[in-house]
Amino acid sequence: MADFELRSARYLALEAQQAAVRAGDTVIDATLGNGHDTLRLAQLVGEQGSVIGFDIQPEAVRSTRKRLEEAGMAERCELHLTGHEHMAEVVQKSVRCVVFNLGWLPGGDKHITTQWLTTEKAVAAALGLLEPMGVCTLCVYPGHREGAVELENLTSFLSSLKPQEFNVLRQEFLNAGPGAPVCFVIQKQASAANDCSVRSV
Amino acid sequence: MADFELRSARYLALEAQQAAVRAGDTVIDATLGNGHDTLRLAQLVGEQGSVIGFDIQPEAVRSTRKRLEEAGMAERCELHLTGHEHMAEVVQKSVRCVVFNLGWLPGGDKHITTQWLTTEKAVAAALGLLEPMGVCTLCVYPGHREGAVELENLTSFLSSLKPQEFNVLRQEFLNAGPGAPVCFVIQKQASAANDCSVRSV
Repeated sequence: MADFELRSARYLALEAQQAAVRAGDTVIDATLGNGHDTLRLAQLVGEQGSVIGFDIQPEAVRSTRKRLEEAGMAERCELHLTGHEHMAEVVQKSVRCVVFNLGWLPGGDKHITTQWLTTEKAVAAALGLLEPMGVCTLCVYPGHREGAVELENLTSFLSSLKPQEFNVLRQEFLNAGPGAPVCFVIQKQASAANDCSVRSV
Repeated sequence: MADFELRSARYLALEAQQAAVRAGDTVIDATLGNGHDTLRLAQLVGEQGSVIGFDIQPEAVRSTRKRLEEAGMAERCELHLTGHEHMAEVVQKSVRCVVFNLGWLPGGDKHITTQWLTTEKAVAAALGLLEPMGVCTLCVYPGHREGAVELENLTSFLSSLKPQEFNVLRQEFLNAGPGAPVCFVIQKQASAANDCSVRSV
């Protein structure tokens, strides 16, 4: 057994995904980036499962597709070159997990970052799509201006969710500096309706 | 495999303890209470390990001892009827884990609660006693006045720890109401000196 080690916000999100996602599940990668999360999700859902991914940058979709093809997992994945705020128009079934890794494309243009206006719509859509006991993870990076706005608004938005419908965990590393990433893990309650409404935006 | 489920601050603390503590370890239960944590720690360290416990209430020491005896685990435990702020005078070796469950004795006198003045001394002592990669868990209950004081001061105290020496994770359930418990998990870095100093109080 590996020694227990506290690592990072991103690692906490990964642990929650690994614990929640089972073979055969349908999951969403709401921010493809370079496809690292997408590939991991594709491994978790296995051959019978599927991953539906979104990104607004052609470069992100391209590099993710390449990564999936090299690993022989492209067939179980469906990549959309469109904003994650449209996910409920594309996905017509409930899902086990939705993964958000906010901010900009690593190695890409740092002026193109997720924005609260669309992030809020996307998170509301994601929470609506979750099946009971399904999990949404969000990593937020308040070290840049738009990330700080996202963190403040997300915290307030998620605090307002009904406890009968969602359990919302906020995890932060206290002594890692003011810009340290924060990880949210949100689980839909077992008793919540599949399509329980989230404050519309 | 049990379905992934977000539960409570107390459960997050328990998960960290289970991941960190190995057979043969020496660990500290800084708040015996009714001995539930003590018994679980005694199971985790096994026959070759040891649990050192502290509480200022004779009732807590008595009910913990009874619980341990009934489970046949009293021999690996050493219970002290003294405040946890004295732990460094009693414990002369480094330890793998220290567990704090702050507040009052469940079922006991609610006027007798842990107080920030002694809690701070105890936490500083605990962090000093941790071995590298050792873990301290703290559950705090801000629903009562002294608990709210403890939470505010603990957050500020733990934020000031050097990241080269400790990794400090704060976990809270955002939509569980203002008095919802908070769980801190603190890990001493692998490279930290065994007796690295913590701001003295």
